[in-house]
Amino acid sequence: MTLKLYDLAGADDNHRFSPYCWRVRMACAHKGLPLETIPWRFTEKDRLPQPSNGTVPVLVDRGEVIADSWRILNFLDQRYSADPLFGSEPAVGAALFLKLWTEQILNPLVSRIVVRDVWSKLAERDRSYFRESREKRFGQSLEQVVENRDQTVLRLREALEPVRTILCERTFLSGASAAGPDYILFGVFQWARCVSSFPLLLNDDPTYAWQTRMLGLFDGLADRAPAALDQAE
Amino acid sequence: MTLKLYDLAGADDNHRFSPYCWRVRMACAHKGLPLETIPWRFTEKDRLPQPSNGTVPVLVDRGEVIADSWRILNFLDQRYSADPLFGSEPAVGAALFLKLWTEQILNPLVSRIVVRDVWSKLAERDRSYFRESREKRFGQSLEQVVENRDQTVLRLREALEPVRTILCERTFLSGASAAGPDYILFGVFQWARCVSSFPLLLNDDPTYAWQTRMLGLFDGLADRAPAALDQAE
Repeated sequence: MTLKLYDLAGADDNHRFSPYCWRVRMACAHKGLPLETIPWRFTEKDRLPQPSNGTVPVLVDRGEVIADSWRILNFLDQRYSADPLFGSEPAVGAALFLKLWTEQILNPLVSRIVVRDVWSKLAERDRSYFRESREKRFGQSLEQVVENRDQTVLRLREALEPVRTILCERTFLSGASAAGPDYILFGVFQWARCVSSFPLLLNDDPTYAWQTRMLGLFDGLADRAPAALDQAE
Repeated sequence: MTLKLYDLAGADDNHRFSPYCWRVRMACAHKGLPLETIPWRFTEKDRLPQPSNGTVPVLVDRGEVIADSWRILNFLDQRYSADPLFGSEPAVGAALFLKLWTEQILNPLVSRIVVRDVWSKLAERDRSYFRESREKRFGQSLEQVVENRDQTVLRLREALEPVRTILCERTFLSGASAAGPDYILFGVFQWARCVSSFPLLLNDDPTYAWQTRMLGLFDGLADRAPAALDQAE
């Protein structure tokens, strides 16, 4: 039976860029689970099945509703144990650390680079909600936030040092094959790639080669996703 | 058969504080493996069994020599599969990220707080080697490095945010029980605790409560370790 995922969309229904939804899409592909994605916008909180907290991803599987990418990945491992995303309790713990580091350290840096691009790709009805909530968070206009992105990207590349060190030696974070930790990290890069043409990584960064490998997985699932569409601003 | 670990010692043979050696001591206790530790000093590179690269930990198990804490933890999981430290390939990958983050982000900050205290606890014959190599690394005298430790500790507490978030919800990083990821992180705190009375954590930080739980594991193995001995300076 096909799973359903409520997935953030831009102005174009096919433009999907949420870093958290991408974790789930890659995880479902990893397990070979058929997935239907339902385009959703920030201002459609009432359209989400319950229980959920007004954000995506929300997954529906055989009538069961699971919100939050971390809970969804763990749910998938419990219900569909083949091809584990984590595979052990210590793995869940260490992956949780990676998830939190990604969200607390990496995402804010990437956000300071691409947030104005995200805004420009949104459906008209989402734009003022997005601008207001993000400008409140940053205490600056979106235009002011991204003004320093040439400096921000240097901080991002510095923060990526542990990732870079691993990927000098391993094909994927998880070893010879990609798994949960890779999908968690990949979401950030796919988010940026889908909304912005600003390059986060130098081409000789092992993280860049890893990103290319991730894009190619599952018949190029992430590579085929519409990237940085130019919507009317 | 008892395993042997070459373990960094201070002026006092019983004073053991290497963050990397503590990872191994906790990991062996986790697996219930009997371990004999051999005190070793920085200036005794020739005393280490080969192959090793002049640093500890070096583990000897049935004639096999394994150097480097990460390699040792993985060796232990392979040879003694019960009570896994990691337990899956994705776990090894995510734990490797935690290890690198610990070494590249956390250790340098803690080092800037305790490095002068480490020096003061060393055997006389290790002191000039240690001072010279560390002062070269920092480009400052040890005394200058620690002068700003009131500021450094704030940066450390900020960097610990992902750890703190996990430990708000979980008893150990690895879940209900401690495992590899916990021992990797714990080494840093045990290092600081064994050489310095400078408090790294606020008492209401969930990381502090976790540290207390870690100290109590294995009949208080880490808690019983001589801490912050006052050697003659």
